[in-house]
Amino acid sequence: MPARSAANIFARRVSALRQRIEAAEVGGLVDAHPPNVQYLTGFTGSAGVFLLTPRDAILFTDSRYRIQAREEARNVEVRVESVRLHTAAGKALRGRHRRPVIYSPEHTSVAQRHELAQASGRGVRWMAVEGVVEELRSVKDESEIAVMREAARLAEEALSEVLKLVKPGVEENDLAAEIEYRMRRKGASGAAFPTIVASGPRAALPHAQPSRKRIAKNELVVFDLGAILRGYCSDLTRTVHVGRASARVREWYRAVLEAQAAARAILRPGVDGAAVDAAARGRLRRSGLARYFTHSTGHGLGREVHEIPRLARLSRSVIRAGQVVTLEPGIYIQGVGGIRIEDDIVVREDGTESLTQLNRELLEL
Amino acid sequence: MPARSAANIFARRVSALRQRIEAAEVGGLVDAHPPNVQYLTGFTGSAGVFLLTPRDAILFTDSRYRIQAREEARNVEVRVESVRLHTAAGKALRGRHRRPVIYSPEHTSVAQRHELAQASGRGVRWMAVEGVVEELRSVKDESEIAVMREAARLAEEALSEVLKLVKPGVEENDLAAEIEYRMRRKGASGAAFPTIVASGPRAALPHAQPSRKRIAKNELVVFDLGAILRGYCSDLTRTVHVGRASARVREWYRAVLEAQAAARAILRPGVDGAAVDAAARGRLRRSGLARYFTHSTGHGLGREVHEIPRLARLSRSVIRAGQVVTLEPGIYIQGVGGIRIEDDIVVREDGTESLTQLNRELLEL
Repeated sequence: MPARSAANIFARRVSALRQRIEAAEVGGLVDAHPPNVQYLTGFTGSAGVFLLTPRDAILFTDSRYRIQAREEARNVEVRVESVRLHTAAGKALRGRHRRPVIYSPEHTSVAQRHELAQASGRGVRWMAVEGVVEELRSVKDESEIAVMREAARLAEEALSEVLKLVKPGVEENDLAAEIEYRMRRKGASGAAFPTIVASGPRAALPHAQPSRKRIAKNELVVFDLGAILRGYCSDLTRTVHVGRASARVREWYRAVLEAQAAARAILRPGVDGAAVDAAARGRLRRSGLARYFTHSTGHGLGREVHEIPRLARLSRSVIRAGQVVTLEPGIYIQGVGGIRIEDDIVVREDGTESLTQLNRELLEL
Repeated sequence: MPARSAANIFARRVSALRQRIEAAEVGGLVDAHPPNVQYLTGFTGSAGVFLLTPRDAILFTDSRYRIQAREEARNVEVRVESVRLHTAAGKALRGRHRRPVIYSPEHTSVAQRHELAQASGRGVRWMAVEGVVEELRSVKDESEIAVMREAARLAEEALSEVLKLVKPGVEENDLAAEIEYRMRRKGASGAAFPTIVASGPRAALPHAQPSRKRIAKNELVVFDLGAILRGYCSDLTRTVHVGRASARVREWYRAVLEAQAAARAILRPGVDGAAVDAAARGRLRRSGLARYFTHSTGHGLGREVHEIPRLARLSRSVIRAGQVVTLEPGIYIQGVGGIRIEDDIVVREDGTESLTQLNRELLEL
């Protein structure tokens, strides 16, 4: 039964995509981006090219995935190829076509683009259009949101347990290992990205990798982590202080927390990603901290840890109900440290719902 | 002191690359593939474009990496950009150039290629050449090999410990979590790829992800794992049998082990990747097992878990001393299971050295 109902989900997605390309008067679409292929077919392998035309839906893969592809991708024709997969997809389109075939300029390499053109011949007109499948999968249904809620819970439970181990002398690297281990043991298939544990001055690096540095008294420690559960990611950041925080640190923390709340307050269907970013940035500006906020306010979350919409200064994303986004303002002060607070928020018709529930107040450990 | 000597290593690499492009009468090279950028500059962030010309060596990155890039990449000029990084690199080349500038067709997207051309203007002629930096870094020096030896040891220690936990009733997923946790606690910065633990019929999927399936009596279990240590990967596979193996399983195991030995016996500088593959395949053919060997014999290993040279049927790689490769023949029998044995081998002027030392005989647990 699960197999049948899962196949139905994939069939519905492929059919929604087909309607979309037919409405756009497009003759087909080639997509090899693994999260897209997985969303449309269920195939979890690393080598797959999906081809959709008004008549056909084909997954090209290689011999390593012969058995797995046929088990996982039940809603499409599976072809096991010994040539390069874009060559196979191009060949399948050979002939004269009136309508152009879409490919992604961001996820297609120059070499793959060349293979497509060589194999399809001149009868096929190739058209670069970005984000067709990404747009479709940015809006989640309730079953997807339920999995993401569970993925968020796994990350929160792991972090809550590991926060009890934080004390002067413990290595960043060991705390990161504990977090990832606990997420796995709770059912995650892995970490959504390399867990960040950054303490003291290292917390001023937004993307610091955990190091052998030991946690010290009177330091800020940033934890940024996420679990993958049944293909969906969570993404959670909390910043704690080891020992009693100074008034200045509390003020900084308060500003970041309020920046997050300001962004959430205006997040709703129809608003611009840039406006959500501006709300967070505006709150930090009021405290003179905007110049320390060196990244964007958030990003879509789902099968990828960074997807559309973007919540950034120059974002042209328009927010839609059913999208899940992170809200993660932060400040980074060289030589001192950093503070970031990140939650995963579902955009609802009439407001927002936070998938992450963990305490957001400054924790002094 | 470490910082200075590290900077010297990167300066030497950049200088070797510059000699190479000058010898080829090329005007410059743009590379954004993270393992290449890291090899040439030390920068470990995810967003970096490296530009080399006869005069300049520039790393373009974004504001998230402002501090980190300047700390890590000491041998090049660091520019923090608010425009897209390929646009920045293209712009830096604006003007009239006699010689073409190289980019990688495999690691450059159609969108990035377009940005390069738009930003550089028509005065720059772009030339697609694959693997220039990959070729350079495929040959490891003794300090790199020492790190890889250590990365191999971490994987072996973790697997040895976890093999003691294998018994009927244990979940694949939990064994994978234990392996990754132990690698981390021993100093790895992470797993080189998602650890594979595949038991019984699932062992017939060469790239199976660990599942909630429990290990059962009389099953083969394939473990494929690797650690990342200071940017370098290990990659190790062992197959064990739960309970006493049948004569047939022992025969299969023997054939795979001898296929690996056959490949190793001819591995040396100057030989073709295809010949190494043929040696392993030939041994399996003698036992009527060649059709169950559905992937290639091995691949280069280093900063990436798959790099050049390829040891495959159609490989045109010529093996060089200092390269590190995996040798990993395997057989996969649908509905029954699979056997794969993988070691990491350094090609020496006068033979080979295995970085992995763990027992290769069939273990019955």
